[in-house]
Amino acid sequence: MSQADKNIPPEALLALLKGRRSIRRYRPDPVPDEMVEQLLEAGRWAPSASNRQPWALIVIRDETIRRQVAQHAAYYFIRWAHVAEAPLLIVLCGEGRNRIYRRFLHEDVGLAGGQIMLQAKALGLGSCWIGALDRKAISGILKLPDHLEIVALLTVGFPAEDPPPTPRKPLAEIVHYDVYGNREDDGGATPGRVPAGPLGILLRRLRLPFRV
Amino acid sequence: MSQADKNIPPEALLALLKGRRSIRRYRPDPVPDEMVEQLLEAGRWAPSASNRQPWALIVIRDETIRRQVAQHAAYYFIRWAHVAEAPLLIVLCGEGRNRIYRRFLHEDVGLAGGQIMLQAKALGLGSCWIGALDRKAISGILKLPDHLEIVALLTVGFPAEDPPPTPRKPLAEIVHYDVYGNREDDGGATPGRVPAGPLGILLRRLRLPFRV
Repeated sequence: MSQADKNIPPEALLALLKGRRSIRRYRPDPVPDEMVEQLLEAGRWAPSASNRQPWALIVIRDETIRRQVAQHAAYYFIRWAHVAEAPLLIVLCGEGRNRIYRRFLHEDVGLAGGQIMLQAKALGLGSCWIGALDRKAISGILKLPDHLEIVALLTVGFPAEDPPPTPRKPLAEIVHYDVYGNREDDGGATPGRVPAGPLGILLRRLRLPFRV
Repeated sequence: MSQADKNIPPEALLALLKGRRSIRRYRPDPVPDEMVEQLLEAGRWAPSASNRQPWALIVIRDETIRRQVAQHAAYYFIRWAHVAEAPLLIVLCGEGRNRIYRRFLHEDVGLAGGQIMLQAKALGLGSCWIGALDRKAISGILKLPDHLEIVALLTVGFPAEDPPPTPRKPLAEIVHYDVYGNREDDGGATPGRVPAGPLGILLRRLRLPFRV
């Protein structure tokens, strides 16, 4: 084991994982270059199928392009306001030309994006994964070649909110031992305060002055 | 920001991300229950589309079932030997019945699996993500219902090897600024010592007495 690992007690990492939130309000301050580089490094070191690293990361800081992309970061009548506000966008793209490896593309790019979000948290930055996008329009704005597919977009910036945890299913609901259906009741429910699913999205989208 | 985050300097997290390896040799010691619970907690707190948490985690410690699964953890002529050796398997499954959310299933389950691998690293455990599997056979062994899909299998245990880093593409190859094709030459190449792709897999699979 290397020296550096020993510096992170497992409880501290778990606290970071549990403490990460989807941040939807940002201060206007730009993200310093050194931090951007750490985010990209975090993504670069993700594992991938056969270590093919099938990702391309589009780092958007230019305000005009950010606002153009924000116009298409939408799902039907919901437009994600925080995309226009965030000082930094990272578009996570995947290269799926190889027919065999294509089936692993979304988890590979997901692993890179996950590491970026965690590194953001450690840096005191907030981030939010956005999957509901007009991919065709954004691909056009970013001049993506045909072989690159947009998996998701991350908004990044210094947080201007401190949202409560969203609910999580108890372990007893998601974990099975040895075979499916063999569960343990661990009482691990963590209800949280924002409802899951579309209602939660709408409530958060409304930006009510009180916590939902 | 909560207290716990401050305990992880960003450099320490980045070192953990860079220091994680795919571990393919394990000591036979079982993984203690408290550690298993931390792994599951790490996965449980991953973000997911609309916080639907579409995952099911099958924790396999029973030796008979582990060996049955290992028989089908194979890709054509390559059978992953470490699946039979690892004292703990976690099968990452996803529930994709909802037509809209189905498209986010693999990244959602990927994020949970990624957090489990990082927590394993912090606990001094090794893990390895395996995507090349006979899903149909393993689903049968685990009695999975039709609505659950196997995204991947993680092998987990105390490492009996300390492999060198696999190579990573330089940032200049994977990062684009504002629009595709706008790159910077950062000289960030990290060649590593094990070739990427099928050759690297074969070389590692051979378990040569020297480092490849």
